[in-house]
Amino acid sequence: MKDIKFGYFSAESKEYVIIRPDTPTPWINYLNNSKYCAMVSNTGGGYSFYIDPRDQRILRYRYNNLPIDRPGRYIYIRDNQTSEYWSPTWQPVMKKLDNYECRHGLGYTKISSSYQDIHAEILYFVPLEDNLEVWSLTLENNSSEEKELNIFSYAEFCLWNAVGDQRDLQYIQNVAVAKYDKEENMIIYHLFDSSLGIAFFSSNGNVTSHDCDRESFIGQYHSEANPLSVENGKCRNSQALGGNPIAATCNTLILNPNGTENILFILGIVKKKSEVKPIIHKYKNNSNIEIELLKLKEAWKSYLEKIIVETPDEDFNSIINIWNPYQCKTTFDWARYASFYETGIGRGIGFRDSSQDTLAICHALPKMVRQRLLDLTKNQFENGKVYHVYFPLSGEGNYPDYVNPLMKFFSDDHLWLIIAVSNYIKETGDMSILREEVEFVEGSKAPLYDHLKRAIEFTNNHMGPHGFPLIGTADWNDSLQLHGPNKSGESVWVAMQFHKALLDLEELAKEYNHNKDATNYTNLAKRINEHINKHAWDGQWYIRAFTDNGEIIGSEKNNEGKIFLNTQSWAVYSKVAPVDRGLQCMNSIRKYLITKYGIKLFHPPYTRFYPELKGISTFPPGLKENASIFCHTNPWAEMAECILGRGDIAYEYYKKIAPTNKNKIAEIHQTEPYIYSQMITGDDHPKFGAAKNSWLTGTASWSMKVATEWILGIRPDFHGLIVDPCIPKKWDKFRFTRHFRNAVYDIQVQNPNHVSKGIKEIRVDKIIPESNLVPVFKDGKKHIVEAKMG
Amino acid sequence: MKDIKFGYFSAESKEYVIIRPDTPTPWINYLNNSKYCAMVSNTGGGYSFYIDPRDQRILRYRYNNLPIDRPGRYIYIRDNQTSEYWSPTWQPVMKKLDNYECRHGLGYTKISSSYQDIHAEILYFVPLEDNLEVWSLTLENNSSEEKELNIFSYAEFCLWNAVGDQRDLQYIQNVAVAKYDKEENMIIYHLFDSSLGIAFFSSNGNVTSHDCDRESFIGQYHSEANPLSVENGKCRNSQALGGNPIAATCNTLILNPNGTENILFILGIVKKKSEVKPIIHKYKNNSNIEIELLKLKEAWKSYLEKIIVETPDEDFNSIINIWNPYQCKTTFDWARYASFYETGIGRGIGFRDSSQDTLAICHALPKMVRQRLLDLTKNQFENGKVYHVYFPLSGEGNYPDYVNPLMKFFSDDHLWLIIAVSNYIKETGDMSILREEVEFVEGSKAPLYDHLKRAIEFTNNHMGPHGFPLIGTADWNDSLQLHGPNKSGESVWVAMQFHKALLDLEELAKEYNHNKDATNYTNLAKRINEHINKHAWDGQWYIRAFTDNGEIIGSEKNNEGKIFLNTQSWAVYSKVAPVDRGLQCMNSIRKYLITKYGIKLFHPPYTRFYPELKGISTFPPGLKENASIFCHTNPWAEMAECILGRGDIAYEYYKKIAPTNKNKIAEIHQTEPYIYSQMITGDDHPKFGAAKNSWLTGTASWSMKVATEWILGIRPDFHGLIVDPCIPKKWDKFRFTRHFRNAVYDIQVQNPNHVSKGIKEIRVDKIIPESNLVPVFKDGKKHIVEAKMG
Repeated sequence: MKDIKFGYFSAESKEYVIIRPDTPTPWINYLNNSKYCAMVSNTGGGYSFYIDPRDQRILRYRYNNLPIDRPGRYIYIRDNQTSEYWSPTWQPVMKKLDNYECRHGLGYTKISSSYQDIHAEILYFVPLEDNLEVWSLTLENNSSEEKELNIFSYAEFCLWNAVGDQRDLQYIQNVAVAKYDKEENMIIYHLFDSSLGIAFFSSNGNVTSHDCDRESFIGQYHSEANPLSVENGKCRNSQALGGNPIAATCNTLILNPNGTENILFILGIVKKKSEVKPIIHKYKNNSNIEIELLKLKEAWKSYLEKIIVETPDEDFNSIINIWNPYQCKTTFDWARYASFYETGIGRGIGFRDSSQDTLAICHALPKMVRQRLLDLTKNQFENGKVYHVYFPLSGEGNYPDYVNPLMKFFSDDHLWLIIAVSNYIKETGDMSILREEVEFVEGSKAPLYDHLKRAIEFTNNHMGPHGFPLIGTADWNDSLQLHGPNKSGESVWVAMQFHKALLDLEELAKEYNHNKDATNYTNLAKRINEHINKHAWDGQWYIRAFTDNGEIIGSEKNNEGKIFLNTQSWAVYSKVAPVDRGLQCMNSIRKYLITKYGIKLFHPPYTRFYPELKGISTFPPGLKENASIFCHTNPWAEMAECILGRGDIAYEYYKKIAPTNKNKIAEIHQTEPYIYSQMITGDDHPKFGAAKNSWLTGTASWSMKVATEWILGIRPDFHGLIVDPCIPKKWDKFRFTRHFRNAVYDIQVQNPNHVSKGIKEIRVDKIIPESNLVPVFKDGKKHIVEAKMG
Repeated sequence: MKDIKFGYFSAESKEYVIIRPDTPTPWINYLNNSKYCAMVSNTGGGYSFYIDPRDQRILRYRYNNLPIDRPGRYIYIRDNQTSEYWSPTWQPVMKKLDNYECRHGLGYTKISSSYQDIHAEILYFVPLEDNLEVWSLTLENNSSEEKELNIFSYAEFCLWNAVGDQRDLQYIQNVAVAKYDKEENMIIYHLFDSSLGIAFFSSNGNVTSHDCDRESFIGQYHSEANPLSVENGKCRNSQALGGNPIAATCNTLILNPNGTENILFILGIVKKKSEVKPIIHKYKNNSNIEIELLKLKEAWKSYLEKIIVETPDEDFNSIINIWNPYQCKTTFDWARYASFYETGIGRGIGFRDSSQDTLAICHALPKMVRQRLLDLTKNQFENGKVYHVYFPLSGEGNYPDYVNPLMKFFSDDHLWLIIAVSNYIKETGDMSILREEVEFVEGSKAPLYDHLKRAIEFTNNHMGPHGFPLIGTADWNDSLQLHGPNKSGESVWVAMQFHKALLDLEELAKEYNHNKDATNYTNLAKRINEHINKHAWDGQWYIRAFTDNGEIIGSEKNNEGKIFLNTQSWAVYSKVAPVDRGLQCMNSIRKYLITKYGIKLFHPPYTRFYPELKGISTFPPGLKENASIFCHTNPWAEMAECILGRGDIAYEYYKKIAPTNKNKIAEIHQTEPYIYSQMITGDDHPKFGAAKNSWLTGTASWSMKVATEWILGIRPDFHGLIVDPCIPKKWDKFRFTRHFRNAVYDIQVQNPNHVSKGIKEIRVDKIIPESNLVPVFKDGKKHIVEAKMG
């Protein structure tokens, strides 16, 4: 327990257990059925939305507020004898609690605490199918005296349109209607124009008073910490007609000596008022709640059991078996759109983000991935480029504000689609997706395969003066904004990504019997490869890009921004680098970019703003794209090291950013130590090691991918599972259970000679196959794969 | 003092004095030199910006926060003997204070209070020429013991770009740099890309510690109410590199028994770091502060003395001599862009708003009005329509999100320009403005006069199926959104506004010797007039509009929205209505729309959402455009009554929404009772009488106009001042001192027969003129006008 600062992993219950409420940042969980999403922090803070956090925001959240992390789903307990009140989630009243514990589980969160003789536990979850959230409050009287308690609930509605809710107060503060319906014991909230849907809040308790108007409940110059209604011991039975709608109820409860009581609260959204009744009747019943909870747990079990690993590293197992795939599902659902840092009103679902988010959940949710790939493809223009984002409710595509009208594209976006489709087909074998007819933005239709070809064409038609792809507004590195009046900025990294996409599409074309295409792509890839090796090799590493004026970025000759991570890791991953250069450039990374908390994006950081670089030089050194440890890129380096066969280095890098390791330094790392964050402050900054922007990061899928497919080396291919581990030498063995195309593979790998790489012997159901490609069975059965490294 | 609930008007000091801090809403003041703007509430809350609140936001504000009204310009006083601390502005610490008083004056605010033996006063002001704000803190030790105090200052910076500051946290929370400069005893804040400017904070005290990073000063899970640094008695000397930059300093002060000390704090913005030193040296000197304060007071005196009234109604005098022109200047400066309700990130400067805001300040600030009219004109397209808004820093024009792409114009916007230019020329006689060459949006140029002609042409070229102007996206009533697929919605009100604009331009054309134009406009006006009277008269009033499907709005035949205010008041004001119809429609208003707190927009309100009406039916009845008392429209009705000669009715209506009257019901009215608010909740709503959206409303200029030009009846014309009062019969007399074209008119009106209207005798410098048009003198002298009504 020495390492426990704020919490610990419970492998048994598959929970992360937080033991004090004042975590360095709010540590949250996503409760979410891919449509209704509720974020909840360890102190009850957080917000909810339905499908699109911009257009159907249900609960409000004040980002970057003081105190942090308000409002939320709050319960106030008031002892009517003493008039004392507190919140069992600590916030917002912040009375000192005993036995505080927050358990973030798979799809649920449980917060419990004691104050004086009352123990309270709140279980929050979102059921699998209904668009609502349940708050189940259990109270225990640990004294020998009867207690009369008033239990207040509180949730602050957002006015649907989250942009207007922040920005257009003079309008939006005059459109709400929230009223109490006595018959059904519920609060109904909608806009005066109710066509956007109806929110409801109800409970199964004895509601003695209610408030629907925030100012009535809270009181002027009060806050959630000391609501007037709670101070007074009862609500004012207010309605909201305009203003700030809330759902607040007061239940009066007599708790016997040593007695226990439960109150269920439900909050949800329906299209029409008539749909409310049946749904609240269902959820006011405790046994239905138990059924729904069981379904939820089953669903997560089923999702997680698609890959189960047993390695000598318990921390690694806990990440791969629980937290990493859990985060992968979250990033798949919400891309970079809605978190405690992503405000859910600007970005929409990113094309490149979402493409990459499919990579590590195909094995578990292939149908959802298939649909997402088709949805993404709808954002492609006939010339092959794609919208940078789209909004999930309307489906409309868009570019961000900073897109350059002269170069209205991101040079990498469309190419990710090829990589994602190839990944999907290798996992599922579903070649039929290539024949799916999908619309272009302009309205015409073509099979998905043609869309992929157009992506290649776009890049091939947009080459710059040095023969590298034009960077457009930017490439994967959004902040490397090399666009300018000459329309000449070029990305060497996109050339590598292009090479990778060409190889993927070449393979796919062959499988699809489009051999002429395959030959074209082979030739094109060869040309690109030669061009990169001829013009982008700097002597010890590959350069990164050319500015709009043709100046090199990422060269020994630069004073700042000499060496960039991505053009080294991708040189290897994309098969551009010959082995010697691969080793040399990855050794350069090791020399310049490694820190104790992860690998930096580049070195040295920019110490001033450069108009020709824009975004990347708008951050102080060590933050964000200006040489932070941008976590997304770390697994790419790990992958490269696996390809080079250096398992110890790959694993060292893997562990540097692994959540379990962050748990040991939670006070430095700050964000949730059970999931990845977007970035960790680099060593050029005084707050070295502090992570920012937790949860929604491509780090999730790439870390899952590198851990399972490159370190453990179990990698789907068109005709089977490749077994090709690259592990720490000290490991004796590991076991990998994997679902693949309607069969289960129980893969047991021995490492008696303590090597990192190389399969010496392999048996599949006792039979020696031709290679380390384990065949497809599709028989619904379990197959034993025994492999020996050496 | 019976009427004093929260505060009172001090005529002598020209201040509104607030006597308790917990006003129903924050009651604010604008401290502002038309470039640097600081809003400050009666508890120290508020924000600052430079020129454009969207692009150069200096201090942050959390709108619609809990508790309301944070953050602000805070001072914490900590008694080092007891470790107790408080805020002399009540917020944010909210300790109970003695002798609390907030004096909102002309361009300054003074907040004072006592806690235990320490009396504190903070004077906030923005000097006339420098882009900064001064906080001058004076402390008095009223005890016989020496006191050691630590004085903490606190201001939270916004990250310049106020949109990103709210929306793009993951980016913008990583771009700030704030550091302490020991040599100059100042905090410097800028973005890492410092090209947008440098903010500075400095004081003349003995700064013993400082903080530039919010989280360091406030502490995790703390708020402005209990900052960790204040609790600890010293700051942590933090810097900000990313995160939330602040300026917090700690001054240690020994206050002798019965001693007094002063500390000056200054906060401002410069372009380059080298500009900071001289400016802080200037403002660290108390005598310079006094000079600047004197200059400020002189400037306001000079502004206000352009019109001074003495009537039997002291409240009326106080509004017209102080508060109404004060508000007019504020609305002229900031249109509807930045207040505590207008978030300064959406709207920009509205074309129609700003045009109307010029109407009542021409007499005092003709040069600024001239420039504004030319700036506005730049937003006109060659076809005569105009952008709906423009952004002051960049000058770029735009339309709001809800503009209909099929009808991408507002039908009234461009016509206001004619009314505003006519008003300006009548005030100043400056015909040269008509010859000013101004660019269209497309880039071509034309004299202003041609721009006005194009405005007429646009409306004339955009008539609907019933012969009324197409409403476009909407007309003055933004929420009456009759646009639709048929592109056929029509506005009867715009037909009246068009008639008024035609008459104005006809007069102007004659003055400008463009007689052919004048004849054309006369004929066109005649046609429109006949058309309205033939097709828009409903029997007892004029209808309001036609929907996209050609259905009538505002008729006896409608179940909801039967009678609208604006087509009655404007029928009279625009000279469309013959006298009998004018009287009849204004009598209908009196029958249906009058409430005790003002005149409603229409009756009855819409009780559900109508897709064909959109906006107006998105509000619950009684709010905003759905039949609230939309204050802007009330002076129009008053004007119409003056034209009809019914002075008692006009005055009755005037008083209904007059700020002084609201002071008596401040707990109902809620917003500041010294200025007008946009709306007062109508009697169809349970919160009848509650005002919303204070300060930035066209009510300011129209109320000033109606009071001075129609009730008191001193009205500029091309060749003189018309004297044509329409007053309450009971008034014996009034006096009106007015600057007009480089002369001062001391107008003394007697009403011995107690009539409302009609000048029986008039003398100008003892000479009887030909009519009640007092001539232009331009001699820099005072002229006595004596008039007798009867």
